[in-house]
Amino acid sequence: AYHEKVLDHYNKPRNVGSLPKNDPNVGTGLVGAPACGDVMKLQILVDDATGEIKEVKFKTFGCGSAIASSSFATEKIKGMTVWDAAKVKNTDIAKELSLPPVKLHCSMLAEDAIKSAVRDWEAKR
Amino acid sequence: AYHEKVLDHYNKPRNVGSLPKNDPNVGTGLVGAPACGDVMKLQILVDDATGEIKEVKFKTFGCGSAIASSSFATEKIKGMTVWDAAKVKNTDIAKELSLPPVKLHCSMLAEDAIKSAVRDWEAKR
Ligand code: FES
Repeated sequence: AYHEKVLDHYNKPRNVGSLPKNDPNVGTGLVGAPACGDVMKLQILVDDATGEIKEVKFKTFGCGSAIASSSFATEKIKGMTVWDAAKVKNTDIAKELSLPPVKLHCSMLAEDAIKSAVRDWEAKR
Repeated sequence: AYHEKVLDHYNKPRNVGSLPKNDPNVGTGLVGAPACGDVMKLQILVDDATGEIKEVKFKTFGCGSAIASSSFATEKIKGMTVWDAAKVKNTDIAKELSLPPVKLHCSMLAEDAIKSAVRDWEAKR
């Protein structure tokens, strides 16, 4: 039985969608999970002056746990600075959602996607 | 880029839901994929006289390819006899949906779930 928080985010995922990839203030992360072949795209819109994340969107073809992890992560990093967001650990997400050990790679996908989006934004500056 | 048939079944999955588990004519298959930890439930309602599958329902917490594979499989086996349905191969599903090799285990989940549902129905007779 899955934790109700996972099911809530799975059934009503937050911040699904896309941001304009070519916007200079948008960072795009696109990552894959070797364990299962799933992919995730996560995008952040950053305030150039403060580094604050104003908007987050994600899309995944991954499983329920990947959907829940990324949905949860988008809510978590919205309002953070990119530098704080880059420090979010998948183990925190997994703990918060009570993911079973076999699904840890799904929350890893979310962590990797955040880091990748931040790197993309930094590279664009 | 995923094949449009996968996306169609992923976005509008057919036959999602449950059938009454204790109905003597209902077979329930519950299987897991070791590769990714995902699970799938597939149920069939069988005509006791002819062995024909009258109704199929599935539920999965699996990835997009697992959702598409099982949605496609439910349409495929509806109207078949249980004996024909038990012969459906995951490679047929994967081919039909043009799944990449790394997602073959997702279609395997659908094949296993059908076989498991048929076995459950046979055990109940
Ligand atoms: S990755 Fe688990 S079912 Fe597809």
